[in-house]
Amino acid sequence: MTKRTEGRRRVVIEAVKPQIDGGLFPIKRIVDDKVMVEADVFADGHDSLFCMLKYRKEEDGEWIETPMQLVVNDRWRGEFTVHELGRYLYTVEAWVDRFKSWRGDFVKRVEAGQEVSVELKAGAELIKEASNRAQGGDARRLQEWAGALRKEGKNGSRSSSLVLDDEMARLIEKYPDRRFSTVYAKELIVVVDRKQARFSTWYEMFPRSCAVEPGKHATFRDCERRLDYIASMGFDVLYLPPVHPIGRSHRKGKNNVVGCGRDDPGSPWAIGSEQGGHKSIHPQLGTLDDFKRLIAKAAQYGIETALDIAFQCSPDHPYVKDHPGWFRWRPDGTIQYAENPPKKYQDIYPINFEIEDWPDLWQELKSVILFWIEQGIRMFRVDNPHTKPFVFWEKVIREVKKEYPDVIFLSEAFTRPKVMYRLAKLGFTQSYTYFTWRNTKAELTDYFTELTQTEVRDHFRPHLWPNTPDILAEYLQTGGRPAFMTRLVLAATLGANYGIYGPAYELCENRPIEAGSEEYLNSEKYEIKHWDLNSPHSLKEFIGRVNRIRKENSALHSDWSLRFHPVDNDQIICYSKRVEDPVNGILIVVNLDPHHVQAGWTDLSMDALGLGTHQPYQVRDLLTGAQYQWQGARNYVRLDPQAVPAHIFSVGYR
Amino acid sequence: MTKRTEGRRRVVIEAVKPQIDGGLFPIKRIVDDKVMVEADVFADGHDSLFCMLKYRKEEDGEWIETPMQLVVNDRWRGEFTVHELGRYLYTVEAWVDRFKSWRGDFVKRVEAGQEVSVELKAGAELIKEASNRAQGGDARRLQEWAGALRKEGKNGSRSSSLVLDDEMARLIEKYPDRRFSTVYAKELIVVVDRKQARFSTWYEMFPRSCAVEPGKHATFRDCERRLDYIASMGFDVLYLPPVHPIGRSHRKGKNNVVGCGRDDPGSPWAIGSEQGGHKSIHPQLGTLDDFKRLIAKAAQYGIETALDIAFQCSPDHPYVKDHPGWFRWRPDGTIQYAENPPKKYQDIYPINFEIEDWPDLWQELKSVILFWIEQGIRMFRVDNPHTKPFVFWEKVIREVKKEYPDVIFLSEAFTRPKVMYRLAKLGFTQSYTYFTWRNTKAELTDYFTELTQTEVRDHFRPHLWPNTPDILAEYLQTGGRPAFMTRLVLAATLGANYGIYGPAYELCENRPIEAGSEEYLNSEKYEIKHWDLNSPHSLKEFIGRVNRIRKENSALHSDWSLRFHPVDNDQIICYSKRVEDPVNGILIVVNLDPHHVQAGWTDLSMDALGLGTHQPYQVRDLLTGAQYQWQGARNYVRLDPQAVPAHIFSVGYR
Repeated sequence: MTKRTEGRRRVVIEAVKPQIDGGLFPIKRIVDDKVMVEADVFADGHDSLFCMLKYRKEEDGEWIETPMQLVVNDRWRGEFTVHELGRYLYTVEAWVDRFKSWRGDFVKRVEAGQEVSVELKAGAELIKEASNRAQGGDARRLQEWAGALRKEGKNGSRSSSLVLDDEMARLIEKYPDRRFSTVYAKELIVVVDRKQARFSTWYEMFPRSCAVEPGKHATFRDCERRLDYIASMGFDVLYLPPVHPIGRSHRKGKNNVVGCGRDDPGSPWAIGSEQGGHKSIHPQLGTLDDFKRLIAKAAQYGIETALDIAFQCSPDHPYVKDHPGWFRWRPDGTIQYAENPPKKYQDIYPINFEIEDWPDLWQELKSVILFWIEQGIRMFRVDNPHTKPFVFWEKVIREVKKEYPDVIFLSEAFTRPKVMYRLAKLGFTQSYTYFTWRNTKAELTDYFTELTQTEVRDHFRPHLWPNTPDILAEYLQTGGRPAFMTRLVLAATLGANYGIYGPAYELCENRPIEAGSEEYLNSEKYEIKHWDLNSPHSLKEFIGRVNRIRKENSALHSDWSLRFHPVDNDQIICYSKRVEDPVNGILIVVNLDPHHVQAGWTDLSMDALGLGTHQPYQVRDLLTGAQYQWQGARNYVRLDPQAVPAHIFSVGYR
Repeated sequence: MTKRTEGRRRVVIEAVKPQIDGGLFPIKRIVDDKVMVEADVFADGHDSLFCMLKYRKEEDGEWIETPMQLVVNDRWRGEFTVHELGRYLYTVEAWVDRFKSWRGDFVKRVEAGQEVSVELKAGAELIKEASNRAQGGDARRLQEWAGALRKEGKNGSRSSSLVLDDEMARLIEKYPDRRFSTVYAKELIVVVDRKQARFSTWYEMFPRSCAVEPGKHATFRDCERRLDYIASMGFDVLYLPPVHPIGRSHRKGKNNVVGCGRDDPGSPWAIGSEQGGHKSIHPQLGTLDDFKRLIAKAAQYGIETALDIAFQCSPDHPYVKDHPGWFRWRPDGTIQYAENPPKKYQDIYPINFEIEDWPDLWQELKSVILFWIEQGIRMFRVDNPHTKPFVFWEKVIREVKKEYPDVIFLSEAFTRPKVMYRLAKLGFTQSYTYFTWRNTKAELTDYFTELTQTEVRDHFRPHLWPNTPDILAEYLQTGGRPAFMTRLVLAATLGANYGIYGPAYELCENRPIEAGSEEYLNSEKYEIKHWDLNSPHSLKEFIGRVNRIRKENSALHSDWSLRFHPVDNDQIICYSKRVEDPVNGILIVVNLDPHHVQAGWTDLSMDALGLGTHQPYQVRDLLTGAQYQWQGARNYVRLDPQAVPAHIFSVGYR
């Protein structure tokens, strides 16, 4: 295009959505998703426009085009499907459709009984021009059409059947004059992930606590024997805290005390010893081959293994000797250990990213991720990503996913909202959320409306954890077993991605190290635990049932359809998810009060449920099997936390 | 900056506001406005940041800097004042403030009773580094400070008074390490206009109808005699429809009939004859000197003259002969006249912008604007800008305002909302609105909330017209004199910019050409009118009173403070405007029913009025002089359309 065309571009394209921060970051989708794109498209005057959505795989040269339709008020809409993993680009192009403008005016003239012979000639000229852009049979047919119109354009013509020939209109649409078309200034990006990016069920477990014999340090072989148990609860991801050699220097003892006994195993997050660093296996767990055997066995159970990426070092990590420049040195000649003043973590050295030779550092850290990918890992839970530079993650994730687009990065950033969102924008596939501390109906409604009904959802995929090894939420400390059931149902149904830290969770472990603290008493981070998996109080069967419901109901495989429904009792929360094709609707009712029976009347949005206003319908509780015949929005619910504190209703559709 | 620094930029800057379409278009302010800028600014980790707002006149090289303050949740805010006409740029720069981070941590350590000798040495190093960036006395003082800290850093130190020295902290703040600072990627633009861009009171009048003798074509000299009348009503802008020679070919007769009599004067918008085009004066009005005399006289009355820019031609316009390529030719060898099928406007040729030599055409059209600027005109009402390419206006307005930043362009685009907004974004100073057709409380509330309380307000300055020569709104046709009073009060108080087409308005001319039409019967567009300015029914005194109230109350000089207050009667609308410094609060109550007395109870937002919840206060009706003692939100109002259908209350503040 020469500059001479600039003055003739009459169409403007604005407000293209979805779009994150002016196109600076990609939106996220999974394979086979439809990407719906909207734009404000208009020109001066009253001409008809043609508006085209264009998309392509980033590495392909050729755009694929699909027409957009006018919705209302200059808003146009189109969509395309992303069939492959990786990055797609999309943009919008539009132009004045002179033939359609002419045809529209022509119809109005004829309806007004005006003389149209000159107009017929003008139309013939437009068709002739289109024929020049066409080839072969199409060119010939357009020429013939133009000729016929010209013939009709005798003086005094007041109509023409030829103008309204739809087949010809479709033909001419194939050969538009795009010399002065406007292409939207930005090429927007979609990152396409695999299905597990949107729907996954995680189980976090310390491998060293899997031994049959109490007090013994377990091996990966022991973990293999735990797989059947994990699979029986319906989890499809096994997430392991760091499996690397653990430092000796300043190793923490039980309950995080400074100084430790000879047998204290240390925190797995104090990574590195003379036995190796981030690319090594802690010898007490086994060998790299054992590790690979475990992930292969897990795969046989339909369980994928996720690894922890914690970029920090124990004082004994080989990096400390080999790359002293990667750490922060204090004026007294020691290396700065991790701190959050006044708290001190002497067993951990943070990596200093503010260094001259950051490119070497980044290269090495990236190689850690690539190393584990080469061992078969495709899911990483990234520890505290918000304490490393944003640009680092942006570049590393981009480069890794360029080669391995199936890799999933879960951001464990419990920090300020804008920081969490930024990490999602720059590339993390899934993200930890504030769910862990959102307990009341108002808190849950507000937060999950923000996550699922605003533009946040285009980049931020929530991953819900009712507990973690670091966080025994207060609600769990005080609510007993019903609290654990409630929080599990909430996590499993509010979030298509959720996980628990077990067996602490299913065994309802709820003792904090001290009142007011969220730290577990005798935290598994600092000692080997022996869990009684066969305790009669275990929630394993309940969890298995909930996860089976998740698996069997596609409405629970995504979050965007989430809708909250009013209930006239603040202790009862009610929400639904629903998908089409095939239709599946799930209505969840949860008693948030773990101590008392609560009852109330719903005020369901029948529209969100896909039901007519007064239609009778059946709801079946997938947890208990109970069935109810309901009608309309108003229905009675009553939940006893000592029995089951929640309904997960399947909504019956004819 | 070398690429080596990229990996060390830890701060990110997002969501800088105000910002229009990702910085594609400028925001608008007037001289001496404060521009408040906000941004999300954060880094990885927990370091303290320093955040700087930067601005400059576009043509100046040097940025001026002013620190921003943290508001909440990583949101920072700063402001600067625009003192001059023209374009300013603004952006944000931020960096990690290592000294402040260190000092904050130091305080926590001391509070926890920790040993801090090494920390004191680390702080001394930071201060030493800052001293290297300083000169002269500052450098020396920083060095001394560093030395003192180093001395205090003896083994076993547990505190230091020197660290908390605020004067030293301010000193070190002058010498930050900005090597790895982040500068926001965009330089955003403010266009600064003169005060009249935000607050102006327009009177549209056909100069040819100002003759003393009925039926006679008036001259500019006659118009001079009309100035006293216009000034007495308090208008400060006199807007004249086109004053150029009017074409003869296909001239329209009375009431827009095809074919006209010998004496029919034709539409002033059918511009151009053998006597000249857009740079000429219609001979019957006088000479260019007469025109300049009129605008000089008007200026003596405090009235500025606004001219109409209507880029279209009568068939007799010199352009038709000199530049036949600037028009659209039909297959029968005639030029395409204006049409909106099936409607035809044979007396007007639109200009064809879709031509090869558009640069010449644009140059000539721009020269029309410059011509009138050279004659002393600084306000242009642009006719139908939405039928000319957006890029044309963008370039022309930009170029004109570069040379003449005091020029005001009013966009007369009654079309779809996104088109109207685009014209405002690309450079129009003020814009016609849908006010003309917004009559009910809900319509007015919704529309003016959108215009004044959303981001629209940063680029779109509403200009309200209750009537125009083209539009006799239905409400005015049916509501009698009270309707004219109501709509005038609404326009004058909802919009800091408003105008009327007179004398039709003040004389309550309300006869349409036919039922269901908004066209005036015997429209002044096609004939010379003789108005009885002394009619006892004239609203001239009422209008004068309203405009005096506008002038005297600064709350009515801008729109952003507009707030609507509930009233328990849908026929009564209530709203307020309020400014500080000095404080001025105006509360408007209007009866929208021109036929009946309406009464109701207000539910005022005391906060918006700047009053305490239960505070008694006085309201004085500036229209009638009546005073009321009110208290709290709930007050009784009653309005008789046959008397005065509105209150314009001055709210009393102690």
